[in-house]
Amino acid sequence: MPAMTPAELETFLHREFPQVAGDFRIEAADTAETVVRMAVADRHLRPGGTVSGPSLFALADVAIYLAILARIGPVALAVTTNAAIDFMRKPAAGAGLVARARILKLGRVLAVGDVLIYSDGVAEPVARASLTYSIPPAGA
Amino acid sequence: MPAMTPAELETFLHREFPQVAGDFRIEAADTAETVVRMAVADRHLRPGGTVSGPSLFALADVAIYLAILARIGPVALAVTTNAAIDFMRKPAAGAGLVARARILKLGRVLAVGDVLIYSDGVAEPVARASLTYSIPPAGA
Amino acid sequence: MPAMTPAELETFLHREFPQVAGDFRIEAADTAETVVRMAVADRHLRPGGTVSGPSLFALADVAIYLAILARIGPVALAVTTNAAIDFMRKPAAGAGLVARARILKLGRVLAVGDVLIYSDGVAEPVARASLTYSIPPAGA
Amino acid sequence: MPAMTPAELETFLHREFPQVAGDFRIEAADTAETVVRMAVADRHLRPGGTVSGPSLFALADVAIYLAILARIGPVALAVTTNAAIDFMRKPAAGAGLVARARILKLGRVLAVGDVLIYSDGVAEPVARASLTYSIPPAGA
Repeated sequence: MPAMTPAELETFLHREFPQVAGDFRIEAADTAETVVRMAVADRHLRPGGTVSGPSLFALADVAIYLAILARIGPVALAVTTNAAIDFMRKPAAGAGLVARARILKLGRVLAVGDVLIYSDGVAEPVARASLTYSIPPAGA
Repeated sequence: MPAMTPAELETFLHREFPQVAGDFRIEAADTAETVVRMAVADRHLRPGGTVSGPSLFALADVAIYLAILARIGPVALAVTTNAAIDFMRKPAAGAGLVARARILKLGRVLAVGDVLIYSDGVAEPVARASLTYSIPPAGA
Repeated sequence: MPAMTPAELETFLHREFPQVAGDFRIEAADTAETVVRMAVADRHLRPGGTVSGPSLFALADVAIYLAILARIGPVALAVTTNAAIDFMRKPAAGAGLVARARILKLGRVLAVGDVLIYSDGVAEPVARASLTYSIPPAGA
Repeated sequence: MPAMTPAELETFLHREFPQVAGDFRIEAADTAETVVRMAVADRHLRPGGTVSGPSLFALADVAIYLAILARIGPVALAVTTNAAIDFMRKPAAGAGLVARARILKLGRVLAVGDVLIYSDGVAEPVARASLTYSIPPAGA
């Protein structure tokens, strides 16, 4: 059973990351997969109408973070230690983005997850990423 | 000899990427190294006062992009295809960030660079990243 | 429909890569997934009985290469341009390794795939990797 | 001052990794940089005479491992947790390879380093890699 529901994850995100929480909506979170939607605004775009790399990175990062929280509960101070991301296709113009994240390892100290990012309604992924998070000791 | 001076790179950045150009100042650009400074504002921060991963990614991305332009001249449509980033230390509170980027390969189709990011005045790097850019054919 | 069957892929591997082909057996290859098994020999091991990083890298590399060939047919000169790999768990002692690779992008010039590697019979993956291949122009 | 000399690192490598130690010679090891040479043999080659990806990975991996040991002394059980590698140019035919590794972070639990690999006598690098090692607790 997940440690946090989508509604609890959203509440946590708004409390701890108020600067970015409005960009994201958590659509599903169970032990297999966490699904996060990003509404694409003008500030995420680059010349030619593509979504910027940092915006896609932010979506990948938050999706895996939330997937970890869905497994272990609220841990505000987990930090990304490593990320690898492939930008594979130009996102569809005017479409939102959907990230599907899964946790591949949940260790005592490190967690590893990967994520595929899609333009809403398009079968082929826009980007993929894998990230490692360092999890602070309980009570830290 | 570099194809663009720091002043030309800044002008280019402001014209093509007006949404983010104000965050960055180009301190040096020659064939060996391009140095980009980022003023850290509240919107770049995370709980605990650390600079967010996407903000560090944005700095790495722009620094390598500008290092490519310093070598080949203005190419608005080069796109990042791949990035790997290690977040190694918490940035110093209240300090700006300085990225030092170099180009390791400048091919006809792909360019590869890496970058070290420092808190201003601190010897040990905050982050490292390597990125691949796809360069559009001349005339595209 | 796949462009090559598992038997055709094995024949190709033995002809083009005779030095390593004996390590690998192709169990399945369709457009969704290519499954490659590696028999673990002493030369793949490290102190403590773990499989060496380069051996896991070799398995990831060949699995994605074969997954590309299963899609486009025999191309001897495709080369890896980039790889990111996470080593997540120690492989089970005495067990073979199974790699499950999928192609996420198959462009004219670049292909991107990712792969999970398991100890045979164990549910949690040993490693994950994502690789980019450069595909030579037809006729090269 | 380095914790181990090149001669001590070679002795350690031969004792702990006898299967691969013969491939490598440690040319220099100080706190700034560790330089490792690999003699290229037929078993490292691929069709077209290029050095295989796993062989370049092995060189990157051992160079950073030795760079860590040069800093902290002999630790047999450090393991690679993550690697990102870019293959940028075809190595020169018949030339040995030289890896130049530096440590960017040496934490209590994780160490991060990066490495450039050159064909002997050629100015432009063949490959670059960054790796993270997990360091076992003292006394483990």
